[in-house]
Amino acid sequence: MTFSDQLNEYNQTLAGDHNFRWGYLGEQLSRSGHDVEALLQQLAAFQVAIPSWALGTGGTRFGRFPAGGEPRSLEEKIEDVGIIHALNRSSGAISLHIPWDIPRDYEAIRQLLQANDLIIDSVNSNTFQDQSGQPLSYKFGSLCHTDTAVRQQAVEHNIQVAEYGQKLGDECKTLTVWLSDGSDFPGQHHFRRAYQRTLDSLQTIYNALPSDWTMLIEYKPYEPHFYSMLIPDWGTSLRLSEACGPKAQVLVDLGHHLPNTNIEQIVARLLHFGRLGGFHFNGSMYGDDDLTTGSIKPFQLFLIFCELVQAAQDSVVRNPPVAYMIDASHNLKDPIEDLLQSVQNILTAYAKALLVDTEALFDAQDANDAVRAEEVLRDAFMTDVRALVAEAIHRQGGALDPIGLYRNLSIRQQRIDTRGKLAVATGL
Amino acid sequence: MTFSDQLNEYNQTLAGDHNFRWGYLGEQLSRSGHDVEALLQQLAAFQVAIPSWALGTGGTRFGRFPAGGEPRSLEEKIEDVGIIHALNRSSGAISLHIPWDIPRDYEAIRQLLQANDLIIDSVNSNTFQDQSGQPLSYKFGSLCHTDTAVRQQAVEHNIQVAEYGQKLGDECKTLTVWLSDGSDFPGQHHFRRAYQRTLDSLQTIYNALPSDWTMLIEYKPYEPHFYSMLIPDWGTSLRLSEACGPKAQVLVDLGHHLPNTNIEQIVARLLHFGRLGGFHFNGSMYGDDDLTTGSIKPFQLFLIFCELVQAAQDSVVRNPPVAYMIDASHNLKDPIEDLLQSVQNILTAYAKALLVDTEALFDAQDANDAVRAEEVLRDAFMTDVRALVAEAIHRQGGALDPIGLYRNLSIRQQRIDTRGKLAVATGL
Amino acid sequence: MTFSDQLNEYNQTLAGDHNFRWGYLGEQLSRSGHDVEALLQQLAAFQVAIPSWALGTGGTRFGRFPAGGEPRSLEEKIEDVGIIHALNRSSGAISLHIPWDIPRDYEAIRQLLQANDLIIDSVNSNTFQDQSGQPLSYKFGSLCHTDTAVRQQAVEHNIQVAEYGQKLGDECKTLTVWLSDGSDFPGQHHFRRAYQRTLDSLQTIYNALPSDWTMLIEYKPYEPHFYSMLIPDWGTSLRLSEACGPKAQVLVDLGHHLPNTNIEQIVARLLHFGRLGGFHFNGSMYGDDDLTTGSIKPFQLFLIFCELVQAAQDSVVRNPPVAYMIDASHNLKDPIEDLLQSVQNILTAYAKALLVDTEALFDAQDANDAVRAEEVLRDAFMTDVRALVAEAIHRQGGALDPIGLYRNLSIRQQRIDTRGKLAVATGL
Amino acid sequence: MTFSDQLNEYNQTLAGDHNFRWGYLGEQLSRSGHDVEALLQQLAAFQVAIPSWALGTGGTRFGRFPAGGEPRSLEEKIEDVGIIHALNRSSGAISLHIPWDIPRDYEAIRQLLQANDLIIDSVNSNTFQDQSGQPLSYKFGSLCHTDTAVRQQAVEHNIQVAEYGQKLGDECKTLTVWLSDGSDFPGQHHFRRAYQRTLDSLQTIYNALPSDWTMLIEYKPYEPHFYSMLIPDWGTSLRLSEACGPKAQVLVDLGHHLPNTNIEQIVARLLHFGRLGGFHFNGSMYGDDDLTTGSIKPFQLFLIFCELVQAAQDSVVRNPPVAYMIDASHNLKDPIEDLLQSVQNILTAYAKALLVDTEALFDAQDANDAVRAEEVLRDAFMTDVRALVAEAIHRQGGALDPIGLYRNLSIRQQRIDTRGKLAVATGL
Repeated sequence: MTFSDQLNEYNQTLAGDHNFRWGYLGEQLSRSGHDVEALLQQLAAFQVAIPSWALGTGGTRFGRFPAGGEPRSLEEKIEDVGIIHALNRSSGAISLHIPWDIPRDYEAIRQLLQANDLIIDSVNSNTFQDQSGQPLSYKFGSLCHTDTAVRQQAVEHNIQVAEYGQKLGDECKTLTVWLSDGSDFPGQHHFRRAYQRTLDSLQTIYNALPSDWTMLIEYKPYEPHFYSMLIPDWGTSLRLSEACGPKAQVLVDLGHHLPNTNIEQIVARLLHFGRLGGFHFNGSMYGDDDLTTGSIKPFQLFLIFCELVQAAQDSVVRNPPVAYMIDASHNLKDPIEDLLQSVQNILTAYAKALLVDTEALFDAQDANDAVRAEEVLRDAFMTDVRALVAEAIHRQGGALDPIGLYRNLSIRQQRIDTRGKLAVATGL
Repeated sequence: MTFSDQLNEYNQTLAGDHNFRWGYLGEQLSRSGHDVEALLQQLAAFQVAIPSWALGTGGTRFGRFPAGGEPRSLEEKIEDVGIIHALNRSSGAISLHIPWDIPRDYEAIRQLLQANDLIIDSVNSNTFQDQSGQPLSYKFGSLCHTDTAVRQQAVEHNIQVAEYGQKLGDECKTLTVWLSDGSDFPGQHHFRRAYQRTLDSLQTIYNALPSDWTMLIEYKPYEPHFYSMLIPDWGTSLRLSEACGPKAQVLVDLGHHLPNTNIEQIVARLLHFGRLGGFHFNGSMYGDDDLTTGSIKPFQLFLIFCELVQAAQDSVVRNPPVAYMIDASHNLKDPIEDLLQSVQNILTAYAKALLVDTEALFDAQDANDAVRAEEVLRDAFMTDVRALVAEAIHRQGGALDPIGLYRNLSIRQQRIDTRGKLAVATGL
Repeated sequence: MTFSDQLNEYNQTLAGDHNFRWGYLGEQLSRSGHDVEALLQQLAAFQVAIPSWALGTGGTRFGRFPAGGEPRSLEEKIEDVGIIHALNRSSGAISLHIPWDIPRDYEAIRQLLQANDLIIDSVNSNTFQDQSGQPLSYKFGSLCHTDTAVRQQAVEHNIQVAEYGQKLGDECKTLTVWLSDGSDFPGQHHFRRAYQRTLDSLQTIYNALPSDWTMLIEYKPYEPHFYSMLIPDWGTSLRLSEACGPKAQVLVDLGHHLPNTNIEQIVARLLHFGRLGGFHFNGSMYGDDDLTTGSIKPFQLFLIFCELVQAAQDSVVRNPPVAYMIDASHNLKDPIEDLLQSVQNILTAYAKALLVDTEALFDAQDANDAVRAEEVLRDAFMTDVRALVAEAIHRQGGALDPIGLYRNLSIRQQRIDTRGKLAVATGL
Repeated sequence: MTFSDQLNEYNQTLAGDHNFRWGYLGEQLSRSGHDVEALLQQLAAFQVAIPSWALGTGGTRFGRFPAGGEPRSLEEKIEDVGIIHALNRSSGAISLHIPWDIPRDYEAIRQLLQANDLIIDSVNSNTFQDQSGQPLSYKFGSLCHTDTAVRQQAVEHNIQVAEYGQKLGDECKTLTVWLSDGSDFPGQHHFRRAYQRTLDSLQTIYNALPSDWTMLIEYKPYEPHFYSMLIPDWGTSLRLSEACGPKAQVLVDLGHHLPNTNIEQIVARLLHFGRLGGFHFNGSMYGDDDLTTGSIKPFQLFLIFCELVQAAQDSVVRNPPVAYMIDASHNLKDPIEDLLQSVQNILTAYAKALLVDTEALFDAQDANDAVRAEEVLRDAFMTDVRALVAEAIHRQGGALDPIGLYRNLSIRQQRIDTRGKLAVATGL
């Protein structure tokens, strides 16, 4: 039986319940004045990239507990994203990490991608580790390093990462720079000089990129350094982006904020400045916990999507298209299940944000009617949109319950049988 | 006996101990290669402004416990700053708050200032409260308000505040804008529009200021609003400042940061951008606690001063002179004692920062020798500079132990006798 | 037209939409195996007390913006809770604050309560402010004070508060002690001695209470003191409770935790120890923000209710009935609207918690299937229970949309007309 | 030249400067009424244990940058602690980690310890990782696991760890249990049952320990789990300790607290309850950063020592002797240098705490004179005690500047020459 047959058979078993739920929800949405077909199309069009490094079990500095059957090569990673996308039809892109995912045979990779209906949409550089054989160490920094030669090595690595990306397909036009540079003790860094060196390095990279590429600059307040990070906050990312040029943009990772930060406001600010380039979805309770996105603060995720949707509908906003990617690390869950959950949570938040009656919201805002504004948001958030999301995936050819089918088909066990119990994803 | 006689007599009683300590410290500093006279001059030149609102007991939303003898008028506030400055010779400026401190007789105020060897160096606007008789309410914002008329009223208030300042003396050339505008619930604010309205309002104020005035834009992440603040972080302050013009600058208040923020790095960033305009000193354990500065994290205060001192010595930095002010709120302490402590703590941190062997520090930084860099800082921080600070104050005509003399002279009791047990400082 | 007629007329206008939604939801719940009638009864039985101090506009230390028409007496407060309860049938109790709400005529109050179908279920003492005429000040503490006479005064106040409560009806059997005692500076408190004095005071109060009364001991990490609070965390509350006796219990206020605290785990712990006596509902983004409960973290509120529901169904748990109260402070919203929203949010979270398939959850937990456990919870959380809550209120005689009817009847305007624009709630 | 000769020669070069500083400080302390000889003896008696795992470079989940010459065996770890203790005479104990440090030849180890004037004072179990060949995995917990067999395995491991300790010398009488058990997602744990299972496991371990052994129970709010930790706070540790028996005690690790926690108050509480068993020193800016202790918040470290010193002098306190250990992780620094700095910072904080005029402090506390209380503390904290610490170490036979001599002798280079550039400490 082909996967497609299995999927159809599975969907058939859920059809009765789904039709009952969707029948009601579709009617309810229509009564409320929504264009149901348009909603389904918007959801179908939404794609979130899967990071190649999320297909293996992550771990903490204290230990790592492998899931079994982890992908041992770029090819196997593509195979895993392929099954995710086949199940939910919303994960049609991969974000690669260099040097963990350097292809050996570009043509074969391109064909494999095509066979799985996938693209590579972005590449990520890595100067937070030393690779074996690397001449100079990043122990004390990379783009900010006091030694010109180390900076040069890190700059060249970034340029090379973009070159790998160019060879992987025309859709890959984004270089993501997460700079782990920072200091662990007072006095270690000369803050102003380290900033200036970093800016110089970034400008060199930026200028070496093809003109249609975007450079995303990520920020993070702490870890792996615990006194200062070179790019700790959106303000620094924004300044660096502006100093590089129009194709340099800020990347927001949901786990990279100090306690209690209002992230949705930052998102709105960056959209207002036309500098929100990308998003890393994950879940956070304490810090960069890299949990399933939406697992801890689903209302916050919804509020963030409200900003994204409102900006997309607002003609005064001149922000480029935002690159959506997951960036999580599954310590306990089956990585594929975690990614399926993540995408489901993202689609759910997006669907709810699409339901917000923005006209009523803006009226309430103009009238300073906080209660009414809140109720407008809550009306969307409280709506049970699961049948809407399922219908959208279903119409694209996906499963009504992606995780259910994944488990039903025992895909993890198949992976273990093929790849081995102790297979370790490359890069981990 | 005049105050001067009292002060001399008091210093006499402490002279033996001071001379013992200072004799040693001076020798130790000389042996380490410091120019002791230069240090004394730098300390003597350092002045920190006293805010008029810190002379009364603050309070929380839960209650207020008056100290007794609080100043009932601008004149009495000047009298209180006068005694502080007479004791420590380092508090020669006052920061006024309008409308709490609108003068009735400008000439009399100017004379009183002169008699106390004081200046007014800045004025603060207030759109976080409604004043009696005020036509429109700031309940839902001021510079960001959805209603043009409210914004207009708030803009005019700010311009008027600067006009009061101009009449108070030539030294007053700074308008401090702390904008309490924000929202308490998701949906209440349209983040992007509210930002744009705020920027428009600030630009109008900026353009109305005399060309030699500076506008300081303060940021704060929460309180009095608890979902979003219009200007929550330095990134927002910086953007607003740049959009206004070169005389708009960022003001850093030590208590206005999310938990665990590395404030000294923000200070360094703003200095690097040439946009650090002012400082509000206070102490913080949880949030905007408004405790005595240096009482909770003296090492952080020292590290901040290290950035200020290093930037002042660095020819590549093009930052205007920084306006130093205290902004605390004394709930339990005698306000004058708290201010005396605050200034002492500031001078101490400054003195230690002056002792840092920056050449050795920069060498260690260049060599990525974190241990050595830390030890260079620690060498300065561990030095007991109290005798140096005392000597500097003493040479300016102040008391070797300002709080000691203040208590010795029973000044609080005098204030209570004159002003009454239940006097409440204007504005509180 | 009587209120009852108005309510019926209003419900009639919403009946069509409600019946459509409820028709579907009831069917969906039945299909999932839920006993719909039992759910409705559980919701109907749930009552949350309204604090007398939440009926006026709160404010921050920076200012207060009155709503207009605030209750000027205990009688008017009862009137306001009366309308809330009439609208939602779920707010049948009042929590009083002494000395703000000392009755003048007990018999009249009891009759007024009865007329409004209300009870007083608890009384709160106040030693965080000085009342006019009070012999000794609480500036430096009350139950922990170094001066025996101050402690004695505070102890007697607490005992007296309970005496007022006894005179207000047989249902009032709870004394809530929120102790604001703390210190603002290192060294101010001798931590161990201050703790011991506090314990001694609490034991004296406890021993003076009638044997069928409960004493609730609240904790809070900061504010109004900013270095240490005497009872900063649940561990301290628990120890004090145990040292007092079985009728001393811990009260959890949702806003009284350090950043990132897992509150639902604390709730589970206290239930396990049989010491969870009461709950203060509010919403928090940064600290004790006193926002509408559920407005910021609705998923957290749901998770807390999951613990409460699971414990209530678990025969090994020996916890007394939990006293549920709102404790919020409405700075911007109409206080009555805020309370109506709060109760709605609480009922929603409770309804969702009742829907959790605990058998499936416990199975997943036993199998360490984190994904499945999460999905079980999410299934309940994602369900749109609004029609269930509305039906439960409706069957009790309340409004299908309490806030809608409140606005429809222009009750705030009536209050303003009767009580005045500038009426200030007693105690504020 | 022997080490002893090298040390004497080195001290000789610093003698002039030291004598100048110590001459003054000794005199100043005597004038202030201190018994200088008693201070020196107290400092000399203070010993802090070195953890065997801190002798290699730590790392984060993002990478690890080895220092070179790391100890490859327990013998080499003892050698490294030996040099630390020879330099500072204050690190005479080692805390072992099992299974990383299981001895092969007990007699040889005991002789090596004796030769280095060292003892093993405690052993640490490890159930946060899976060891190769281990039958059951700790992926989903150990002492709290839902599976009895896993709990049994973890219990037996802990008992076995204590057995190793007993064979290592009579001084080893402490088992430290850091339980990493926790959950990453809502619903994963049944909080109450998981707690009960943990308690049962701990009781079994406790009952199996020799009667003169102490079991230390550590707490930590997050990491390696990011939704809940089984023992997140001191309240939980305390309850578990009390349920085990009098020899179960709480261990405080300075990095294991939520943001803004007042740790010194927790220390005071535990001392008051007689349950403070041990201390893990490290430095923290954000979380469990494992930085050099005292490097970020030296004033906090001092305040903690003030509580320890005051309790030690207070006859009403019935707390057992506290086990002091370092628990840091050196990502960038030479591990031995980091440990030397840590001990220096600890001795410095302790020395300052010994200088506090507790009589004056308690008087100020009784009088609610916050300013005076603060100044008493500050007087001690501001004192430059470096010469006092150096003198104490010197009289014990250590180096006047331990790090200086360590660098002077090029010990790290010797280690690299002997052990290799890429040697990795066992356990890392």
